[in-house]
Amino acid sequence: MKIAFQGEPGAYSEAAALEHWGPEAEPVPCATFDDVFAAVEDGACERGLVPIENSIGGSIHRNYDLLLQHSLHIVAEHYLRVHHCLIAWPGVTLAEVRRVISHPQALAQCERHLRELRGVQVEQVYDTAGGVKLIRDQGDRTVAAIASRRAAEVYGLNVLVDGLEDDDANFTRFLAISRQPVAAQGPDTKTSLVFSLRNVPGSLFKALSVFALRDIDLTKMESRPLVGKLWEYLFYVDVVGATSDPTVAHALDHLSEYALMLRVLGSYPRHRLTR
Amino acid sequence: MKIAFQGEPGAYSEAAALEHWGPEAEPVPCATFDDVFAAVEDGACERGLVPIENSIGGSIHRNYDLLLQHSLHIVAEHYLRVHHCLIAWPGVTLAEVRRVISHPQALAQCERHLRELRGVQVEQVYDTAGGVKLIRDQGDRTVAAIASRRAAEVYGLNVLVDGLEDDDANFTRFLAISRQPVAAQGPDTKTSLVFSLRNVPGSLFKALSVFALRDIDLTKMESRPLVGKLWEYLFYVDVVGATSDPTVAHALDHLSEYALMLRVLGSYPRHRLTR
Repeated sequence: MKIAFQGEPGAYSEAAALEHWGPEAEPVPCATFDDVFAAVEDGACERGLVPIENSIGGSIHRNYDLLLQHSLHIVAEHYLRVHHCLIAWPGVTLAEVRRVISHPQALAQCERHLRELRGVQVEQVYDTAGGVKLIRDQGDRTVAAIASRRAAEVYGLNVLVDGLEDDDANFTRFLAISRQPVAAQGPDTKTSLVFSLRNVPGSLFKALSVFALRDIDLTKMESRPLVGKLWEYLFYVDVVGATSDPTVAHALDHLSEYALMLRVLGSYPRHRLTR
Repeated sequence: MKIAFQGEPGAYSEAAALEHWGPEAEPVPCATFDDVFAAVEDGACERGLVPIENSIGGSIHRNYDLLLQHSLHIVAEHYLRVHHCLIAWPGVTLAEVRRVISHPQALAQCERHLRELRGVQVEQVYDTAGGVKLIRDQGDRTVAAIASRRAAEVYGLNVLVDGLEDDDANFTRFLAISRQPVAAQGPDTKTSLVFSLRNVPGSLFKALSVFALRDIDLTKMESRPLVGKLWEYLFYVDVVGATSDPTVAHALDHLSEYALMLRVLGSYPRHRLTR
């Protein structure tokens, strides 16, 4: 099964695709998120996998915008625990490393551990997997990169340290998109919604009442002010249950009485993390 | 007045500081967000200015975490309209540009305009202002960088195109932090809160009722699941009014009955965008 993802081979999105679908996945690298959506829409790939929120960085509004622009369906979610590895040429020891390169976000997430490596210079590059590729291409045995274990495998380099991240609650949530919805029902499913409301006091409270009055649990809730449209807000909400559950269906009917816009992005099986 | 910001001279954070405080601001570059908070805490700078959310990228959880870790106060907010400029050596024309460099996010935000520049290669660097500095240092007249107008001024280069961004609703919201709170009251103020709730159906609805029942308007609402702590959620909420307003004070007392944790990050004048 072809899975479109954004980034170079060895990117965290590719790692998430392989973790989610296993050996049947055939990840297809794309330059941009737009390209991922286009690849699914025109049928070149059966699924796309895009990051939607990170426990440290927050929501990625760009991908919500693309979900709204396209008529695709969310068919799965996947939480990837972000494990940063320190990667160098085979045979290189930690003492030989003089320079560490990675994406600024990855460097920031490993700051404390990096400070413990004395006499090591830190340098920013634009991409985690791209840093590993650079070391492979240049043959430099004094440089190490921070990236996924998968990136080390892709470029034939060695993992010197696994788990370099300072915070062990570093997760990225990915959404799988498809041209066709999946059949999903009951408490082990989630439904993702986007709606807008008039910016008047209490409007969000009224909107949430449609779920609270029916004991429907919310797993995500985010408001996004549409700057420049002073009377409109976008809300991203995930609820437990599927649109085929009568209670959820009633709540959505009820919500449509208040909402200026309401779009169901999909119902899909819930990914429960086991730690 | 010394203002700590993260980034190199010419960064968008520096531009926001100068726009907010005018000529009395003396921006002080810091390598990391931690350094910004430390500079304010130890008195090296009177204010710090950090981005908290972008209309395209979303909330920056890292800075919420730092607000919770430190005992500083939010004393102002500032919305910066992100205007991307194409910057090159003085005298260089658009037709002479062969390569455009910038941070991947800035490149993505100018994608459509960049496609119209035929025969131009696009290359990623780790920082917008850093790309301008690179062109200045290397003296290359065939390269242009995407960055703020301020970056062109800082490095003595020329703005070839102003407003290269595809989406004209590209805003970043910054928060000013200080060791002392400011006096703020009434409908032209905002108060920022962080609280956590038990993850039971309806808990958010109850929490929001403390504001809705008092006709207090919410301007931001975001839930952040604490992955790994299955029964806890963090909520970021901004409300209209100040903690010195009796209605807001009552609502906060009421909220503390439900909340596992409640922290007021500050009351401050509201920045109203005039377009």
